[in-house]
Amino acid sequence: MRFGPAQVSLCGLVALVLCSPGFPAEHPGLLLTPEDVEFIRQYRQESPGFSRALEETRAELDDYFGTAPDVPAPVDPGGGYSHETHKKNGIAIHDAGMVYQLTGDETYARHAGRLLLAYADMYSALGNHPRSRSSNPGRLFWQNLNESVWLTYAIQGFDAIHDSLPPAERNEIVNRLLRPMADFLSEGSADTFDRIHNHGTWAVAAVGMTGYVLDDDDYVRKALHGLDGDGDSGFMRQIDLLFSPDGYYSEGPYYQRYAMMPFLLFARSIEANDPELDIFAYRDGILLKAIHACIDLSYAGLFFPLNDAIKDKGLDTVELRYGIAMAYALTGDSALASIAGLQNSQVLNGDGFRLARARDRGETLPFIHKSRLFRDGPEGKQGALAVLRAASTGNQQALLLKATSQGMGHGHFDKLGLLFYDNGREILTDYGAARFLNVEQKNGGRYLPENETWAKQTIAHNALVVDETSHFDGQLRVAEQHHPDMLFFDDAGGIEIASASMEGAYEGVSFQRTAALLSDFPTEHPLMIDVLEASGENPHQFDLPVHFNGQIVDTSHPLEPASSLHPLGEANGYQHLWLRASAEVPAGEKFAVTWLTGNRFYTYSVIARNDMQVFFTELGANDPQFNLRREQALVLRTRGESSGWFVSVVEPHGEYNGAEEYTLNSRGALDELRFVRETGADFLSLRTADGSQAILALSHDAGEAMTHEVELAGRPYRWNGNYALFQEAAPMSGVREECSADT
Amino acid sequence: MRFGPAQVSLCGLVALVLCSPGFPAEHPGLLLTPEDVEFIRQYRQESPGFSRALEETRAELDDYFGTAPDVPAPVDPGGGYSHETHKKNGIAIHDAGMVYQLTGDETYARHAGRLLLAYADMYSALGNHPRSRSSNPGRLFWQNLNESVWLTYAIQGFDAIHDSLPPAERNEIVNRLLRPMADFLSEGSADTFDRIHNHGTWAVAAVGMTGYVLDDDDYVRKALHGLDGDGDSGFMRQIDLLFSPDGYYSEGPYYQRYAMMPFLLFARSIEANDPELDIFAYRDGILLKAIHACIDLSYAGLFFPLNDAIKDKGLDTVELRYGIAMAYALTGDSALASIAGLQNSQVLNGDGFRLARARDRGETLPFIHKSRLFRDGPEGKQGALAVLRAASTGNQQALLLKATSQGMGHGHFDKLGLLFYDNGREILTDYGAARFLNVEQKNGGRYLPENETWAKQTIAHNALVVDETSHFDGQLRVAEQHHPDMLFFDDAGGIEIASASMEGAYEGVSFQRTAALLSDFPTEHPLMIDVLEASGENPHQFDLPVHFNGQIVDTSHPLEPASSLHPLGEANGYQHLWLRASAEVPAGEKFAVTWLTGNRFYTYSVIARNDMQVFFTELGANDPQFNLRREQALVLRTRGESSGWFVSVVEPHGEYNGAEEYTLNSRGALDELRFVRETGADFLSLRTADGSQAILALSHDAGEAMTHEVELAGRPYRWNGNYALFQEAAPMSGVREECSADT
Repeated sequence: MRFGPAQVSLCGLVALVLCSPGFPAEHPGLLLTPEDVEFIRQYRQESPGFSRALEETRAELDDYFGTAPDVPAPVDPGGGYSHETHKKNGIAIHDAGMVYQLTGDETYARHAGRLLLAYADMYSALGNHPRSRSSNPGRLFWQNLNESVWLTYAIQGFDAIHDSLPPAERNEIVNRLLRPMADFLSEGSADTFDRIHNHGTWAVAAVGMTGYVLDDDDYVRKALHGLDGDGDSGFMRQIDLLFSPDGYYSEGPYYQRYAMMPFLLFARSIEANDPELDIFAYRDGILLKAIHACIDLSYAGLFFPLNDAIKDKGLDTVELRYGIAMAYALTGDSALASIAGLQNSQVLNGDGFRLARARDRGETLPFIHKSRLFRDGPEGKQGALAVLRAASTGNQQALLLKATSQGMGHGHFDKLGLLFYDNGREILTDYGAARFLNVEQKNGGRYLPENETWAKQTIAHNALVVDETSHFDGQLRVAEQHHPDMLFFDDAGGIEIASASMEGAYEGVSFQRTAALLSDFPTEHPLMIDVLEASGENPHQFDLPVHFNGQIVDTSHPLEPASSLHPLGEANGYQHLWLRASAEVPAGEKFAVTWLTGNRFYTYSVIARNDMQVFFTELGANDPQFNLRREQALVLRTRGESSGWFVSVVEPHGEYNGAEEYTLNSRGALDELRFVRETGADFLSLRTADGSQAILALSHDAGEAMTHEVELAGRPYRWNGNYALFQEAAPMSGVREECSADT
Repeated sequence: MRFGPAQVSLCGLVALVLCSPGFPAEHPGLLLTPEDVEFIRQYRQESPGFSRALEETRAELDDYFGTAPDVPAPVDPGGGYSHETHKKNGIAIHDAGMVYQLTGDETYARHAGRLLLAYADMYSALGNHPRSRSSNPGRLFWQNLNESVWLTYAIQGFDAIHDSLPPAERNEIVNRLLRPMADFLSEGSADTFDRIHNHGTWAVAAVGMTGYVLDDDDYVRKALHGLDGDGDSGFMRQIDLLFSPDGYYSEGPYYQRYAMMPFLLFARSIEANDPELDIFAYRDGILLKAIHACIDLSYAGLFFPLNDAIKDKGLDTVELRYGIAMAYALTGDSALASIAGLQNSQVLNGDGFRLARARDRGETLPFIHKSRLFRDGPEGKQGALAVLRAASTGNQQALLLKATSQGMGHGHFDKLGLLFYDNGREILTDYGAARFLNVEQKNGGRYLPENETWAKQTIAHNALVVDETSHFDGQLRVAEQHHPDMLFFDDAGGIEIASASMEGAYEGVSFQRTAALLSDFPTEHPLMIDVLEASGENPHQFDLPVHFNGQIVDTSHPLEPASSLHPLGEANGYQHLWLRASAEVPAGEKFAVTWLTGNRFYTYSVIARNDMQVFFTELGANDPQFNLRREQALVLRTRGESSGWFVSVVEPHGEYNGAEEYTLNSRGALDELRFVRETGADFLSLRTADGSQAILALSHDAGEAMTHEVELAGRPYRWNGNYALFQEAAPMSGVREECSADT
C-alpha cells in the first residue's frame, strides 16, 4: 500500500519519488518521514527559527515530563480536569515523538512510550464516558470528536517512536489502545464516521492515519471511502461536498480554519503513503485552494468574522501553521513564506522546516491580495462571498458582500451584509460571535445567550432589516432553503464591483445590493460605494444598520439627543440597542457623519428614496451580565412605502497625528451624492467640491453582453454589460461624455 | 564671548575643549557646530539610520522648495493659512540650513537665504498682528509665543547658511528681520520676556540664540538674566523656578514635554558658546534631570496623561527627540539610546547623529524604570508625584499616586488620584483632556466644553469625591493655595509604597491614601493595593470612582440592571455618566469584579467601612456632540457617616488566548481581604484560597524612626517606621511571626 514518501527538492518544488509498492510501513510515515528527518539534519543550521522552536518545545516537554503526567479516569466534560489533561497528554505524545526524531534523544521516545502505555492500560476497559450525550458518545472524552482529535496527535507520536519501542510494549499499545480506539471511532461510531460533517472528517482522519501507521488497509479503505466502501461517505466524499469549487467552506472562515485541520493532516499522510492518489490535485486542487481561501478571507492577519466567529482568530493559528507550511512545501510559492511572517511559531515537521528555512533565508515574496469571488455550495451554486480589494498590498481596503448560503447552525441572518476595512482596521464592522472562548465565568466559555438574541440577528449586521424582524424570521430551517444569487462580479481595476439579489428572506420583499470600491476617482483613497434597493408589495419599515468603528467627529444634520436612554425596540436584537440620538432627513437629502478611526477620518454619506430617520445607537441594553462589547451603530430608517433604497459612500480621508500635532483634511472631498432610477438603469452620481464627477450606471437587466442606452437628464448614456463608470473633470451637473465602460 | 564648542569624544562621553575667548562667532554655532559637521562627515557610514533621515528631509525640502514658498501677509489666527504657512516656512529654513551643512549642497543654502530675504522684506513694516490679543501680541503671528518659536528655528537656519550668504544679503536679513524680531520679542514684549512661564522661556531662548549668532552680548545677557539684568527674570531664573528639584514640571508630563523645548535649545546653544557657564550642571544638573523625568513619566512610550493631556503624546515627539539626543551626547548613557528605539526619526544635528550612530552600532542598554518620587514645586515642597514600578523592564506594572500641586490652569481636580498600568496597557485609567487636537470640527481643535464639565472634575479621576462636588469646588484659585503632603515613599523592593494626605480639598474633610505594589506575595503578578481613608466632622457621601479599561467578566454580587439609562447626577461631571447597573454591599464585605484587558484578567476587590453601593457607569450622558470617548467606571459610594475608608486590591491574573484557544486562571488567587483600624496602626490582611497570607501594617504616626507595637486579635506586632509587611504561608486567620519589616 505505501508507495514511498513525498520528497521536496531543495528549491522547494515538489518532486515525487515513487518507490516500489509492498513494503511494510516505514516509520515515521505521516507528516514527518525519514527523508524529512535527514533533510532537516542536513540543513538545520540554515534555520535558526526552526531550531529555536524545537528547543522551546523540548524545554516545554522537559517541564511537562518533569513529573509523570497524570492519566486520570475520564469523568469531566469539556473544560474539566480530565478533559484538559487528556488533551495535553495527546499533544505531549505528539511533541515528544517529533523531538525524539529531530534530536535523536531517546529520553523523549521513552516519555511518549510510557504515556502511551498508561493509556493502553486504561483504554480497553473504558465504556462510554459518563458525561457523554447519546448522539456522539466518546470514551476518553465526553464526545467522540475530542477522541478523534486525540488520536490524530497520539498516532503521530506513536509513529515517531515506533522503531524505538520494545516489541512487547509496541504490541501492547497497538492492541490495547490504538486498535480499540480506531475500531471505536469507525465501526463503533458509525453515525459520526460516515457523516459528511467536520466531526466525520476528524474521525476518518484519525482512523486513516492509524491505518497507515499500523499498515492496515482496512482502516485506510474505510477512512477514504466510508464504512461500507461505496464512496457515499468517507474522506473523498467529504472533500467533494464540504468545500465549494473555490475552496470556501459554508460556515465561514472561522469554522473553515477549524474544519481544515483533519483534511490537512490526513491528506498529507495520504500523500506520503498513497502518492498515486495525488490527493492534493484531487478536485482541481481543492485542498490547496481551501488553504489559499483562508488567506484571502483575512485582513491584517485576522479572519473576516462572518457567522459565529471569535475575532482573535486568524493566520497565526495552529491550523494555518500546518496549512501554510504544507502549501509552501507542496508549491514552493514564496508569497506563502511571507504570510508565515504573521505566525509566531512553526510546526515541527518537514513542511514546517522547509517554510522556516525559506523565511530565514529571506526567500519570501509579498502576498498580493486580489479581489475574489468565493462561490458557495458544493457545486458553487448557492450564492457567493465577494471580497473586493482596492490595492494589492499593505493596509489596503477590503469590502465584503456576503451573499452566501446560511452556513448551518453557526450561520447569521445577514443576507447581503457588508463589511469594510481600511488602513489596517475594521471600519464597517461585524460583531462576530457573542462568546468568550473558554472563559468559564461567561457561560462556561460556550456561546452566550446574546449570541442568539443579538449576534445572529439581522440588526447586528450591516444588512437590511424589514419591519424589525430578522431574515427568515430567524428560522434556521427556512434560511437553509434559500440563498442569494450573485448578479455580477468584476475586478477589472479602477472599480471593483459585486452585485447580488435576495428573495425569500422576507415574505413579499426582495432586495438587491451592489457594492464597489472606486479607485478611479480623484479622492485621497478609494471610495466605498453601497447601493441597496428593496421592493415589496405593501408598505414596510426598512432599516439599514451601519455598525461603525470610530469616534464621531461631525454630522451634517443637527442631532436630537436622548436625555435618558431606552432600547430601540423590543425583540430581534433591537432590545440590545440604546438610542442615543436621532436626526430627520428628507427624501433624497444627503446625510453625512464623519468619524475618526485610528489616525484616519471616514465620512459616511447616505441618501434614501424616502424620508429617513437616522438613529445613533449603542450596544448594551438588556445585557445584565455585560456580555456584549460596547459598540455602536447608526440605524437608517424609512417607513410607509413598499419600496426603498439607501445609497451610501464611505470616503476615507486625512490624517490625525496627535504626537506630531497636525491634522490633515478632516472634512473629505465628496460633496454631492445623487441617485436616479431610470427605465433600464440606476445612476449614482458623485461629485467633489472641486468639481470632479463620476457617474456609476447599474443596468437593470443583468448580463455581460447586453447593450444599454438610457437617457438621463436629456443626455444619452450607452454601455455594454452590467455597469459602466462615466467620468468627467468639469464641475457640471449634467454629463458630457462616456469615458469608460466596463464588462 | 564664545569659548568654543563642546566636543563629544568618540566613546560618547563629554570632553570639553576650551578655546581662547574673544573670537567672533563661528558658524554654525548653536545645536550644530563645525566640529559636529566634521564628525558626522567622518563617521556617517556608521549610521544608516541618520543617513536615511537626512535623505528624507532632503526629499521633503526638494518638494517644499519645488515652487517658491508663499510668504503671506499675516492675517490668520492659529490654525489659519498664514499661521500654518509661516510655521512651515520657519521649519523649512531650519531644515534647509541643516541639510546644507551636512551635505555641502549650496542649493539648500540658497533656498533658506531666499526665504529669509522674503521675510526681511516683509517683517520690518509689520505692526501688531490684526488678530492679536492685547496681552501678548505678535507681528508675524497672532501671539508672540509663535513668533519666538519661529525665531528659534529661523536663527538656526540662518546660522547654518551664514558663511554662504553674500554680505549684503546677510546684512539685510540681520537688520531687517533678525534684529527687529529679537528687539520686538525682548524690549518690545517685556511682559512676556520677563515672565516666569513657558512663553517667557521661548522668548529668552529665541533672543539668546539670536544673540550668539549675531555675536551680540546684549541679547545674550538679557536672555540669561532678564531685561534689566538683575536676575529676577531671564533663563537662569526660569530654570530655578519652573522645575522642581527632581526635574518635575508642575503642569504634568504633557506640558513638561512642550515646556522643555526652549530650555533644551537654548541650553545646548549656551553650552556651545559659553561653556564656562556649565549650564547642564547648573542647579545640580536640573536640565538633564528634567529629560530623565520625561522618560520616567511615561509608560509603553506614552506620557502619563495627568491634567490636560492628549494621550497620543509620548517619547516619540520632537521635543524628546531633541532631549534624548542631547542627554545621550552629554552623558553617553547607553540606556538613553534604547529609549530612542521608541522614536521614528532623529534630529539632524551633532547630538542626533551621535545617538543614531550608537543605535546603529548596537551600543544600547535596556532602560531600567525604577520607582521614583517627583517632588513638586521649585523647592520640592508642594506635594509630589509617586511613580511605583514593580519590575524593571518590559511590560511592567506602574502605579501613580498623584499628590502634586494643582499645576496651574491645565491642572485637574484629582488630589491623591491613582493610575495603574500593567502588561503594556492602562488598567485604572485617566481620561486626560477632552480635546481633539487640531480637528477643526471639534471646537476648532481647542479644548472642548467637556474638558471643564468632565475631564477636569474629580469624578473623572480615580480620586475621592465628597458630596458630589469636585475638590476645591472646582475653583482654580482656591486649589492653587493648597497641596497634598507626602507622608512616606519607599522603593525597597518586595513592596513599593507611597502615602500622602490632603487637607483643604473639602471643608471639614481630610483624606489620605496609601498606594502600593506588592510583589512579595505568591500571586502570579504583583498586587496593586489602595488604602483610602477620609475623615470629617459631619455625615458625608463618599464616592470613589474606579475608571477601568476592560470587558466585565464577572462580579461577586448580583447586579441590578437599569432598564433605561439616566445620568448618575446633575453636575460636577456626574451629569455625563449613565448608570447601567448597581449592587448593594454590606459594610466590610468584599465586592469583586473581574474584567479582561487584552489577554489578561484583572480582579478588583474592595471593602468599605460602611454599607456600600456600587454603580456601574458609562460615559456619554449630556454629550450631544459625541465629544466624549465611550469609557466606563465603577463608582463606589458610602453615605451618612462622617468618616470612611475604601480598601482595594487589583490582582492581574491568567491569560486569555483566543487564537490558541486557551484560557488560564480566569478567577485569580486572592480570596480574603480584611482591614482593621487599631490604635496606632491600620492592618490590611490579604489571603489567597490556598492559604498564603500577608498583613500590611500602616503606622498612624508617620516617621521613619518610630517604633510601633500594636496588638491585633490578641497578638503583638512590632515594627519600626511607617509600615511593615508581615507574611506567613500557613492558612491561618491569625499571624504567627514577623517575617519582614521595612523602613
